[in-house]
Amino acid sequence: MMAKALQYAALGANMTSPNPSVGCVLVRDQQLIGYGHSQAAGGAHAEIMALKMAKNHSSAAARGATAYVTLEPCSHFGRTPPCANTLIGAGVTRVVAALRDPNPLVAGQGLARLAAHGVDVSYGLLAEQAREHHKGFLSRMIRKRPWLRVKLAASLDGRIALNNGESQWITGAAARADVQRLRAQSCAMLTGIGTILADDPQLNARGFAVTRQPQRIVLDSHLRINANAKILSAASPELAGKTHILTTQAPQQADALGENAVLATLPAQNGRVDLQAACLYLGEQGFNLVTVEAGGQLVGSLLEAGLVDEIVLYQAMSFIGQGQALADFCLADLSQQYRPTVIDRRMIGNDQRTTLRFTDLSFAHSTSGE
Amino acid sequence: MMAKALQYAALGANMTSPNPSVGCVLVRDQQLIGYGHSQAAGGAHAEIMALKMAKNHSSAAARGATAYVTLEPCSHFGRTPPCANTLIGAGVTRVVAALRDPNPLVAGQGLARLAAHGVDVSYGLLAEQAREHHKGFLSRMIRKRPWLRVKLAASLDGRIALNNGESQWITGAAARADVQRLRAQSCAMLTGIGTILADDPQLNARGFAVTRQPQRIVLDSHLRINANAKILSAASPELAGKTHILTTQAPQQADALGENAVLATLPAQNGRVDLQAACLYLGEQGFNLVTVEAGGQLVGSLLEAGLVDEIVLYQAMSFIGQGQALADFCLADLSQQYRPTVIDRRMIGNDQRTTLRFTDLSFAHSTSGE
Repeated sequence: MMAKALQYAALGANMTSPNPSVGCVLVRDQQLIGYGHSQAAGGAHAEIMALKMAKNHSSAAARGATAYVTLEPCSHFGRTPPCANTLIGAGVTRVVAALRDPNPLVAGQGLARLAAHGVDVSYGLLAEQAREHHKGFLSRMIRKRPWLRVKLAASLDGRIALNNGESQWITGAAARADVQRLRAQSCAMLTGIGTILADDPQLNARGFAVTRQPQRIVLDSHLRINANAKILSAASPELAGKTHILTTQAPQQADALGENAVLATLPAQNGRVDLQAACLYLGEQGFNLVTVEAGGQLVGSLLEAGLVDEIVLYQAMSFIGQGQALADFCLADLSQQYRPTVIDRRMIGNDQRTTLRFTDLSFAHSTSGE
Repeated sequence: MMAKALQYAALGANMTSPNPSVGCVLVRDQQLIGYGHSQAAGGAHAEIMALKMAKNHSSAAARGATAYVTLEPCSHFGRTPPCANTLIGAGVTRVVAALRDPNPLVAGQGLARLAAHGVDVSYGLLAEQAREHHKGFLSRMIRKRPWLRVKLAASLDGRIALNNGESQWITGAAARADVQRLRAQSCAMLTGIGTILADDPQLNARGFAVTRQPQRIVLDSHLRINANAKILSAASPELAGKTHILTTQAPQQADALGENAVLATLPAQNGRVDLQAACLYLGEQGFNLVTVEAGGQLVGSLLEAGLVDEIVLYQAMSFIGQGQALADFCLADLSQQYRPTVIDRRMIGNDQRTTLRFTDLSFAHSTSGE
């Protein structure tokens, strides 16, 4: 049942940020009587969706039921009332959570309130899978910064473009569609000013039904962005949210960049935005999962700063020769080479997708008492 | 039975050059009565090995038998008598060949002689698999040059070494052992003078039982090799054969390089050894399968010249940043990128091995009448 709850949780992955995308399954007399996942922020949580479905059968359907939830039910009044109260009110007698919620506003109080009302509570079931699903939210809650995922598209010789900047196309249509899925999952997309000036990308999710577009973040230490940059003018303003310009410059110039732009003046390190500070800023903004699409310079700097949690590398089965490298950094010797762990490796159309991880999820072990 | 013959053929792959590594299976009354593969050049051919085994049972064991051979039995006196005659003498009544032998000394005469003596002959069974196995020999016979295979070992960002030359180690022990297998299969190893001067490699096959070491070929347009280079002094002289120095310079200086060295003065193109001429020279030397282990410059030049038949790419799951590229060449636009066909893709230890092919085997279709 928890596996099913995780499947429902996955269905909300493109819409709930900054909230976690929780899944809930209600069972009574070994029958599935309701299920649901978190709606867009401000909308119903997973538990409420599942209870609603159960009540469509009969108003007392949830009485004596067990709720399986991927994350501890909330105990606080946010934009919605606490789910713990609603579960108690509906007569649910057992709650099985995969994880405790590390959100300091919850942090065990949800389960404690349920237990205080005689509900049988437990947690830790399929905790590993749940941590995997909730890694963005857990990262923000525990590490105070988003889960940072770098998307790369390159040839077998590691080129992302020719020296003249031409990069259309190295990978094929299937891989490019898969990248849109990565974008749709993301709370925000991060790029550098170099990419903005060279390619003028939009970094929106295309071809996917989304209730919100990922917000955009530009690392622009010396505020070189042009007010006409496409990334500042959202195609669907109602879904688009803001474009955050992270800079070392004073914020006076924000007005010239239009109403979608948010200028954040951050500490400098070696004349550039301090990347640690940038990640903390992104956490403060409520971003759980941030995907980087950038040139070799920013990718190299993020690797050197130890801030990359995951790389999704699309490799065309081609050779390009001289061109732009996927990551620009300089090692003193080979013992320092970056060796992330391979999580997944498969063909997407004619390209290979390799998912590599620098960060394991042990930072979140407290959520299941490990 | 032909599949079995191909399995035996594979067992001879490390030893028969310049001869093809043929496999033979003898069947009578649906019983396997003999099998064998070609021995080192000058030794017995596959058919003779199989007949010998059958005669161990009884001297007339092969009378009325069928012989499955991966390549047409030879019809000429070389270092051994013609196999066609021996099969006839042994009373074999049916010969099934996978391929006709394109060697102009055979070229259908083997099957014709068998047929003239009342043997039921046919060819074309498992022809595709047999062409795959015999591709080196077929290439030399039909295209007059070896099958050229390039081995690459790189990081995910396409680096074969740091800029300071350090390349030990990018790939792991399992991949490096697999490279020894590639060397053992090869009639010769090809490298460039840059690699000789930088790394001073031996390019011999280690850790494999071989009856001959691959010969060595150095592209050295301006004859910069030093007489002390390890590649000139074979560790096992009786197995080693020669080191061929391909240059545009006059051959006077050969003596200084020792008795293992053969100096070949070839035509120049843009001040360097003409690579087409080099490949024809290697064909004339009797090399069926040549494996390239070289730096990005020679690999890039071979790609640009269209001479690479196959790439075996070992990729460590690591990122190295600034360093030496696996292939140095310059494209005008991305429509020109090299897109070989992926033949095989698997993990070897912690590294991925991808086998990619530029050349399909249609050049040898005449061997099965296609």
